[in-house]
Formats: sequence, C-alpha cells, structure tokens
Amino acid sequence: MVKVGIVGSTGYAGEELVRLLLNHKEVDIKWLYSQSYVGEEYSRVFGSYFKIVDDTCVGGDIEELSREVDLIFTATPQGYCSGIVNEELLKQVKIVDLSADFRIKDIDVYKEWYKLEHKSPEFIKEAVYGLCEINRDDIREARIVANPGCYTTASILALYPLVKEKIIDLKSIVIDAKSGTSGAGRGTSLANMFCEVNENIKAYGITNHRHTPEIEEQLTYGANEKIIINFTPHLIPMNRGILATSYVNLKGKFSYDDIKKIYVDFYKDDYFVRILDEGIYPETKWVKGSNYVDINFKIDERTNRLVVISAIDNLVKGAAGQAIQNMNLMYGFDEAEGLKLAPVFP
Amino acid sequence: MVKVGIVGSTGYAGEELVRLLLNHKEVDIKWLYSQSYVGEEYSRVFGSYFKIVDDTCVGGDIEELSREVDLIFTATPQGYCSGIVNEELLKQVKIVDLSADFRIKDIDVYKEWYKLEHKSPEFIKEAVYGLCEINRDDIREARIVANPGCYTTASILALYPLVKEKIIDLKSIVIDAKSGTSGAGRGTSLANMFCEVNENIKAYGITNHRHTPEIEEQLTYGANEKIIINFTPHLIPMNRGILATSYVNLKGKFSYDDIKKIYVDFYKDDYFVRILDEGIYPETKWVKGSNYVDINFKIDERTNRLVVISAIDNLVKGAAGQAIQNMNLMYGFDEAEGLKLAPVFP
Amino acid sequence: MVKVGIVGSTGYAGEELVRLLLNHKEVDIKWLYSQSYVGEEYSRVFGSYFKIVDDTCVGGDIEELSREVDLIFTATPQGYCSGIVNEELLKQVKIVDLSADFRIKDIDVYKEWYKLEHKSPEFIKEAVYGLCEINRDDIREARIVANPGCYTTASILALYPLVKEKIIDLKSIVIDAKSGTSGAGRGTSLANMFCEVNENIKAYGITNHRHTPEIEEQLTYGANEKIIINFTPHLIPMNRGILATSYVNLKGKFSYDDIKKIYVDFYKDDYFVRILDEGIYPETKWVKGSNYVDINFKIDERTNRLVVISAIDNLVKGAAGQAIQNMNLMYGFDEAEGLKLAPVFP
Amino acid sequence: MVKVGIVGSTGYAGEELVRLLLNHKEVDIKWLYSQSYVGEEYSRVFGSYFKIVDDTCVGGDIEELSREVDLIFTATPQGYCSGIVNEELLKQVKIVDLSADFRIKDIDVYKEWYKLEHKSPEFIKEAVYGLCEINRDDIREARIVANPGCYTTASILALYPLVKEKIIDLKSIVIDAKSGTSGAGRGTSLANMFCEVNENIKAYGITNHRHTPEIEEQLTYGANEKIIINFTPHLIPMNRGILATSYVNLKGKFSYDDIKKIYVDFYKDDYFVRILDEGIYPETKWVKGSNYVDINFKIDERTNRLVVISAIDNLVKGAAGQAIQNMNLMYGFDEAEGLKLAPVFP
Repeated sequence: MVKVGIVGSTGYAGEELVRLLLNHKEVDIKWLYSQSYVGEEYSRVFGSYFKIVDDTCVGGDIEELSREVDLIFTATPQGYCSGIVNEELLKQVKIVDLSADFRIKDIDVYKEWYKLEHKSPEFIKEAVYGLCEINRDDIREARIVANPGCYTTASILALYPLVKEKIIDLKSIVIDAKSGTSGAGRGTSLANMFCEVNENIKAYGITNHRHTPEIEEQLTYGANEKIIINFTPHLIPMNRGILATSYVNLKGKFSYDDIKKIYVDFYKDDYFVRILDEGIYPETKWVKGSNYVDINFKIDERTNRLVVISAIDNLVKGAAGQAIQNMNLMYGFDEAEGLKLAPVFP
Repeated sequence: MVKVGIVGSTGYAGEELVRLLLNHKEVDIKWLYSQSYVGEEYSRVFGSYFKIVDDTCVGGDIEELSREVDLIFTATPQGYCSGIVNEELLKQVKIVDLSADFRIKDIDVYKEWYKLEHKSPEFIKEAVYGLCEINRDDIREARIVANPGCYTTASILALYPLVKEKIIDLKSIVIDAKSGTSGAGRGTSLANMFCEVNENIKAYGITNHRHTPEIEEQLTYGANEKIIINFTPHLIPMNRGILATSYVNLKGKFSYDDIKKIYVDFYKDDYFVRILDEGIYPETKWVKGSNYVDINFKIDERTNRLVVISAIDNLVKGAAGQAIQNMNLMYGFDEAEGLKLAPVFP
Repeated sequence: MVKVGIVGSTGYAGEELVRLLLNHKEVDIKWLYSQSYVGEEYSRVFGSYFKIVDDTCVGGDIEELSREVDLIFTATPQGYCSGIVNEELLKQVKIVDLSADFRIKDIDVYKEWYKLEHKSPEFIKEAVYGLCEINRDDIREARIVANPGCYTTASILALYPLVKEKIIDLKSIVIDAKSGTSGAGRGTSLANMFCEVNENIKAYGITNHRHTPEIEEQLTYGANEKIIINFTPHLIPMNRGILATSYVNLKGKFSYDDIKKIYVDFYKDDYFVRILDEGIYPETKWVKGSNYVDINFKIDERTNRLVVISAIDNLVKGAAGQAIQNMNLMYGFDEAEGLKLAPVFP
Repeated sequence: MVKVGIVGSTGYAGEELVRLLLNHKEVDIKWLYSQSYVGEEYSRVFGSYFKIVDDTCVGGDIEELSREVDLIFTATPQGYCSGIVNEELLKQVKIVDLSADFRIKDIDVYKEWYKLEHKSPEFIKEAVYGLCEINRDDIREARIVANPGCYTTASILALYPLVKEKIIDLKSIVIDAKSGTSGAGRGTSLANMFCEVNENIKAYGITNHRHTPEIEEQLTYGANEKIIINFTPHLIPMNRGILATSYVNLKGKFSYDDIKKIYVDFYKDDYFVRILDEGIYPETKWVKGSNYVDINFKIDERTNRLVVISAIDNLVKGAAGQAIQNMNLMYGFDEAEGLKLAPVFP
C-alpha cells in the first residue's frame, strides 16, 4: 500500500482525490491537510463522508507529516508547493502538485503570468509535466509531477496530434473553452454565488488566462516550433465539466478519415482518451465523474478550418483523476487503477 | 458470477443499474433489453459507455432471453413485469422488479391507485417487498423482489422506527417530498423539458400520488395498525435526489437523545442508513451517486411535533442501488458489494 | 412625482426596487444608498443598468439625505431601520422597511427570535404591517410600513381566509416552504456558492426560522385566537420564487367549492391574488418577475386535511413589489401602478 | 391602436411577444393563433397569464383572421410564412416573420441550408431584413419584415462595424456562440429534457447551423465583399441568453480606443446597443428580459487577434423584442416603445 497525504484536502480537487482514492486498491490515505479546517472532522466539511471517512483535518509542519507518507498530493493555490519542496522533503516523498508551480519550464513566463516569485526554481527542471498521454515514461521516474490544469488538459489533448503532425497552421489556433463552476474552487466570492452564476454565461480572463502559456509550452514541444494561441475561457452554470472548442486552419486537403487516423494512432495506447465515432461530438455529461477525455472534430469544407471538440470532467481528468493516473505510473500500478468508474449520468 | 439481464435498460434507472453493476465483482451483464432502442448500440443511447459497454440493445422474447441469465432486473413501467412473470420463468430466473407491480399486497389498492388490472395476481403473495432494512431475511429467500419506489424509500425509512415504537400519533403523518427530475423518467414530455423545470418548483400528485398506498402499507406493517398519511411530492430543478420532510405529532415528551436511540437501535446493522449527528440535517448533495440514506430530526418544543428529514439519491437507494442491494441479499453476497462508492460532490 | 431613496440598494431586494420603480409613472429615485459600494457607479455593481441608471452609490448621513426625498425604502439587515427612525426623520419622510424591525408587535418576541435589542421600540406600535391585502386601510395612513417577509407573505395569504373563517383546526398548521436562493441575499457565503446550491436541496432553520413568529402573529390577528405553527423552509437551486405547501386539518366536511368561495370572497378586491381554477396548482414559474400570488388547494378526503399551495416571486411580492404596492397605497396611487408587468417565462 | 395577431403564440417566442406587447401603449392583440392548442385558453397553456389574458387560442383560416388586424407576427417554423404570404394578404396586413423564410435573399442558399422549397419566392426581394440597427430606413417602408435569428443578431451586431470599416481579415472570422435552451423552442424532444441539458454543455450544428448563411449574407453587405465564416453554436443549461465570442484577425495595429470609436460611431443612434466600458465584458444576466445587446472586445496583442463578446436575450432582442422594434419602425412609433424594461436580475 502506498501511503499518501493530501494538502488542500478541503477544496473541490482535494475532496475529489479522497472520493477516488477510497476506491483505489493500493492506496492508504494517512492524513488530510487543510489550511482552513484544522481540527475539524472531515465529514463535517463534506457531509458525504459521514461514516466513511473518520479523519480530522490536520495542519502544521509538512516536513514532519511527510515522514508518515510515501507521496503527497498538493491541491493548493499557486506558490504553496514551490514553498515546501526541498531535497529533504523529496528524500521522504514523491509529490504530485495540482497547482501551476512546476508546470511552466520558463521561470520568466511563470512570473509574468502568475505575478509570483518562484520559491524553488532549482526543482523546475526535474519536475515532469504530468500529462500521462504525452509524458508517460518520464512520469514513471519522476519525484515531482506537475499535474496539468483543467483547461490545459482538454486543450492540449485535443490539439497535440495535430501540431505534432503539422497538418495545421500553427499560428491559427483559437481555443474557446467553457467550464463548470467547480473549476473556480471552493473559496467564497460574489462572482461564484449561485444567483450570479445561474442563468448566466460570461467570458473571463480574455487573452490573459493563466492556462494560456501552459497550453502553448506543451504544444510547442509537440510541434517543435514556437506556438502562440488565443485562449478564452467561459463560466457556465453547471458544477462539473469542461468543453473546449478549438479552431485551426488546415494546411492542405484532408478527409475525416485522414485526421481520424492521426488521432487514433496517437492515442492507441491510451485508456482514457476516446476518439468518438464520426458525427458524434463530445458532451460533458458523458464524461462526468470519470477520467475520460472525449474528442472528435469536423472539417469545415467551406473554410478548410478544423473544429475540434474535447470534453473532460474538470475535477477528474482535469485534476484529481489525472493526479491519481500520475501516481499509478509513478508506482507501476495499472494506469487506470481506481479510475475505472463509468461516468455518472444524469 | 451471477448472470443478469436488464429490461428497461435505456431508462434512467436501467442505465444506473449498468453503471453500478460494472463495478460489481460478482455480476456479469448478459443483455440489455430496450423497447425503444432495439438494435442500437448501448453506447449510442448513452455516450458515457463508449469504449466501456459494447452491447447492442436487444428486444424480443423474454422467456428465451431468460435462459441466458440467473436474474432479471425489470426497470419498466407498471404492468410489464406482472405480464411476464409465470412459473416457467421463475424456474429460470429470479426477478427484481423496479416497478410497482408487486409492491402492493392488496390487489384492490393496486387497481385503484394504478388504474390497471394486475396480470399475475397469483404471484403477489410470494413477492417480497425489497426494502432491505425492513425485510432482509425474506429477501434472501425470494424469487420475486418488489423494489420500493424512490419516494417510498425515503419516507418509510424516515418513519418506520417511529411507528414501530408508537411514539407518534399515527393519524398525524404528513410527508412533504421534493425530487429531482430524473425521477420522472427519460420519456419526453413538455412538463419535463429544461425550460419548464428550470427556475421552477411545483407540487404534483397532491393527495393522489401512487407512492401513497405503498408508504401506508409498509408503515401499517410496522405499526401493526392501519396508517393513512398525507403525501405531497414536488418537482425541483435538479437531476438527482429526494428530500422528504415528515411532520408527526409526538405522543408525550421526548428528548433528542430518546428518539435518536430509537433510530440508532433500529438501524444498528444497516450499512447504508446514516443517522446524522445532532444539528446536522440531510442534504441531497451528500448522498448523490451513492446508496446512502441520511436521516435526522428535530423536535419542535412549541408544538411537540417532530420534523424528520431524510435524503436519498432517487436513482441509487431509490432505484438501482437498492435493486442491487436486494440482489446481493438474494445471492448471499456482501450486502454492500458494488455499492461502496462514496457520494459524488459537487 | 414622489421622490424616493433606497437604502440597501445593492442587495437583491434593493436592486429589484430599482428595476420596478423605473417602470413607475409617479416615482423619481433620488439616491441609491449602499454600505458596501459608496462611490461606485450603480451600473458597475449591476451591469444591467448600464446606460439606464447613471447614479453613483451614496453613503453617509441618512438624515441629511432624507431632506431630498419623500419616502425611504430600507432594504437592509435587521437592526438598521430601527436605528435610524426618529420623530425628526418621520417629519421628513415616510418609511417602507423591508427588514423585520417593525413587523413584530411584541418586542420580546422580536428579541427572542432575532437576538437583537430593538433600537426604537416607541415606534413599533404605530408601524403598520404592510400586507396590503390584509391591512390596506391602515397602510394608507401609515408613516412607517413594515414590509412583510417573503415566506410570510406566501404563507399568510394562503392561510388567512381559513383561520379567519375558522374552518380549520388552528393547532394543526404545518407550512413547508421552498425558496430560490436570492432570498438569502447577495452577501457571500460558502452555503450559497453555486456548487453548493446547485443539484441540492436542504431544509434549514427547522423549528426556529425567524419568519415563524411573524406568520403566527398575523394569523393570530386573523383568527383572533393564539396560533402556533410549524414552519420549515428549504433552499432549492433556482434564483427566484417561493412555493409554500401548507397542511391543515379541516373542522368538518367541506367541498372544494365551499372553500373556494371563502378564498374568492376574501380576495375579491385584490388585484394581485389569483385563486386558480380547480385542479390547477401554483408553480413559481407562473409568477416569476411579477407581483402576483397564486393560490389553490386540495382537500384530502381520506384524512380530511387541506393542502394549500401558494407561490410568489420572493423578490417581488415577497419584497420589492410589495414595498411599492405599499407605497402606492400610502400615496393614493393605483395600487398596481408600476407592478402590472406580466410574469417572465421561461 | 395597431391591431395585431400572433401566429405561433404558444411557442416561447410567441409567448414573449404577448408579454412585451401587453406593455405596449399602441398595440391591441386581437388574436392568438396556435397549431397545437386551438380552443384552449391561453392562460391554461401559460399559467402566467391567468387573470391577465382572457383569450382562447384560435386556429383556422389566416386570410379571414387577417381582416381583423393590421399586422401579423409569425413566430412559426420555417415554411409557414412563405406559405401564407400573397398579394391579397399583404393588402390587409403587414407581416413580421420571426422564421427564416424571408431572411435569405439567395433562394438557392435557402434551399441548401433549410432543405425546403420556398413557397413564395416572388416576395423575397421586397422583404426587408429586420435588423433595425442596420436597415432602419428600409424597415419603415416594409410590408414584410424578416426578423433576424437569435444567433445572427448577436453575431452580426458584434461584427458589422468591423467588416464595414475593413479593419479585419474577412477570411478570419470565427464565431463561437452559446445559447440557453429556450432557443430550441417548446416542442418536446429528448435532447431538451431537463436531465439531458442540466449539468451539460455540447456543441451542435458544427459547420452547418442554419444561421451561418444569414450571418454571412449580412456581413457581406456590410463589407461589400463575400464573407464566409465559421460558426459553432453550443447549448448550455440556462433558459435565456446568448453569448457570442467572435475571433478575428486585425489588419494592422489598433488601440482599444481606435476600435471603440468605430463601434461608438456606428451605433451612436441605437438605443439598444450598449458598447461597454473598457475591461467590462458582456454577460447574459445583464441583458436578460430586455432588448439590449451588450458588446465589448479585447485586442490580443500577442496574436493581433480581436476577441469580440456580445450578449443578448435570445427571446427579446433575438426574437420578440426585435420583432416589436421592427413594428415600431413600421408604424412610426418610438423605436423603444414597449421595450424600455430594464433587464431582470437575478
């Protein structure tokens, strides 16, 4: 059994880690760390765990706590994980960080988009970007895995095969993404109150959302050529789910089957990627509660543009599920262990 | 492995059976029967099952199909199951019927409330009412289990210990229940269109909802005295969940702890019943996707009335989960097998 | 033109006052007062008013501001209005208070339920409870009108004719109410975040919600006999609307028409009360955005209990609309002026 | 008083016409025509109109009915209006058609996208496209006004000034639009059932939605150059509202103010177009229930792409409100008569 601790366990992503890990055969949750709820019963914070989880939220010194576990998940705001990582800690534990601290290799890009000094830049290089479908081998050996963002997961997986095969104009990428509200976290804010979100849709972070450089960096690796994109997220009145609609210009003529083959070949070994049948497009309800990413596309013959649709559950493949998938790789477990649950509908 | 078939597999309850059974160690789903989708791939009807369920929906002769399985779940409209049951069939298979056909022992009551002739009245007597917490022993031996209704499960479990202990005025029972929309099924109707349900609440079936006699019959067994109730269901804009608020007059003075003891004693062996801590009341979000029923109550000192709140997921404990719990009993499995999933939040 | 000021203009009820008053022929809004947004443009707080309302939110001394207006609406937390009322102020302005400060005549009841000292008890007696359908004549002459609560409006109007005619057992009243989330106000709180409210229903304030004594006091006047009730509110995932389901025991045998006559006679002069046709029950969607209260009922022959359903828009008839209706009476305007808008559906 | 009849009065757009026209000083609704509800009281179809609208839905011969009115609104499926228009009828009445029958000038384009033969092609030429902000003068003289589609209104108004001023690459236009569910109409369908729409987002009509050629035709007039676009609509879980996010490549360097000036100049006389302040972006909640269209944009310096956001209420500016705005022009009324209602929030 791998012993794990969860920092940020009282946020939505942290809670989802608990839900999924309870179903994992090889994991033992040792402690649930929380900034805001130290000393409170976890099942008071989330009534769902009454009679299921007996733990009380812990706080305090992370180094001390690290001695009880093999791996720590940090489901925390940016700046936390980079503040605790050091060689001592890494001798004790592996880390899967769900924040952005180790996602961006270029520290200047991190500073510019996150307006934060990085507290442990010396570990950026060794940290592995934890998009399993892309970096599977490196993840297996990693001590620090930077778990991808939710929008970025949906976006990169939709576009990676296309930029790798260079069948699209790399300057033409536009991603229009829509997210449920759990992506905004459990901190209170007027903007995320029920009456403000319900019966509303809005764009936000237009041209400057922090997931932009993360998508760009990964696609740049895929293309081996600098990629700059347009990314626009939207908030919609639902709890879970991200749908990303990507628009790219095709370089030359392609049939549906040509492009389908590129996707199918690229993802042939990936349990969680589902390239849908022609004419069937992703909907968030078909992935809710699961670790699947659904992808399909359509060629617009009139403009020779490709429209790619991808859907994930932002809390699973976009956060906790992917973190567990990473952990599975790091420990040589079946990559899908604990994650074989079918989507929950309706 | 128990081989099962699901009739009505393309409704919400049928689909939930599939979701949960995929997670059950001892079950093999042999076929998925559907009136409306014969010959269609199941994963086209529910995109969630793409790459998970390969079956095509079957139709046709149920007796023939029964030879391939040990147990049939009928998640069908009233009148179907009573139409197929006969001695031949029961030599082949056990049946868990999610409709009302075998719930009511008094055939006249059935006719009056359901406006239907019963097609196999000779089996009513042997059918066991499948509320596991009440009829556990009989269920183990049953060939036909009548799986309780969703409202009835939430209502009966909230009130049974009270009527059994006779601490309340049996004439005073008022149940005000609120349900998500999946309870209405997947058949199209103007009343259940998004724009009609969203931003709305309404009562329906006032004084004549069909779950009324079912609740009354079971509570009557519990009290060993004829019970008549007021039951009013409401439709609210959410997918899943039932909250029942019951009002009863106490006979005499009781403390919170007195009544708590009655509940705790009654449900002491019941994995899925959670009597919450004092001051914490059930909310549907804390049971969503799970087989739990959460119960708590408050004494109104001013009127000496007791307010009991109970919450379930209508598709799990109110339908598919309870059906599997029944199956587990019928085959001597761990009663919670396949049902140990924590609630899904948010 | 009546010149009005609105204190608490940046809450949901205050904002609804603005929306409705913009449509009122005889009113001029002089200032919009806000604790939290002093100096901000009102159309920044509510983007809906861009190019419609040019005002900047004001703060500061209410006595000074009172010189500019004829009437002040206080859409504020309890304790505010009672803190500003004095003889000086009342020489300047009339007041319609949307808080509970002047609703309860018995100051001890106020203290007990609101846990607040009353700051101007000397004005409680003269303040008129502003339920127009009940107190129309007194309201016309009032200087201070205590605008009823949202739950109370829906509850009292449903039950008043019954208690007045004494056709029910006055000890048997149970009110089960369900409200949209705008009733909780615009202050941020975890409980009212989108992901906490959406896909959820819960009861709250069980046996101790503050609208209880207000309902009791008014029904007591109607019956001329002390009335104690059970009142249980529930929070449901929608923005607007209250549905109250009331359960009462009938004293003797009554037909639908007998009771219908009682309602129709009682409300024969009331523009905003709609007693629906037999068999048609109130739904909040049919009153949304309007000042109507819809009422209907059904006799349960089996228990001789009456189920009464009433629906309002909590922000209109339950707050701002009723406040304007009160103002119309106070100034001798058509009672429905500014409020003749049809409900908004869907 | 202008006497009007509404065909399709029991759909969402038809019902919205009723709601708004009740508030119009110069209009008298003579009859409400309905295919499905002939002989039923209108207030039974929409409970909101109880005690407000006494009419019973009519059916039958439209030519006969036309003698009672001055203007007919047809809020009907495609193919209806073109089937009734003829010279006789136009001698009796003016027509505002909310369907697509007269929106497209090129009859081959109509056939191709709508898969319908046009039944009165001889009137296509004289029909005026009823986007008031663009065709105000022609509308004043029109006998037939083709009321624009909901998506098209949001899209064209967002882009027209840009294509007219030719500051963008006309080949680069991508429009990603999101709509509430009322846009799908009141006909029952599995896809629009509550449980299918709630907690879900999906794209549909990818590359072939019928509003595409309508947007293209109007933008082509604006640019005086053939325009082909990418248009992708999405269905989101809310009742009302459309948000369109448009992506275009700028030709050359522009500041925010440069482009702002283009919009402000273009819409300087338009009551219902609100170009928001810099940094404030449209949200559907700020236009709900009103006839406003909110627009703002942001330049992405990194890609020199412009992101334009526009929001409308699909049932008002996207259907009924715009139809009334057209009628106002046709009769020389104040263009905003009956439409001055502030948005309804929350």
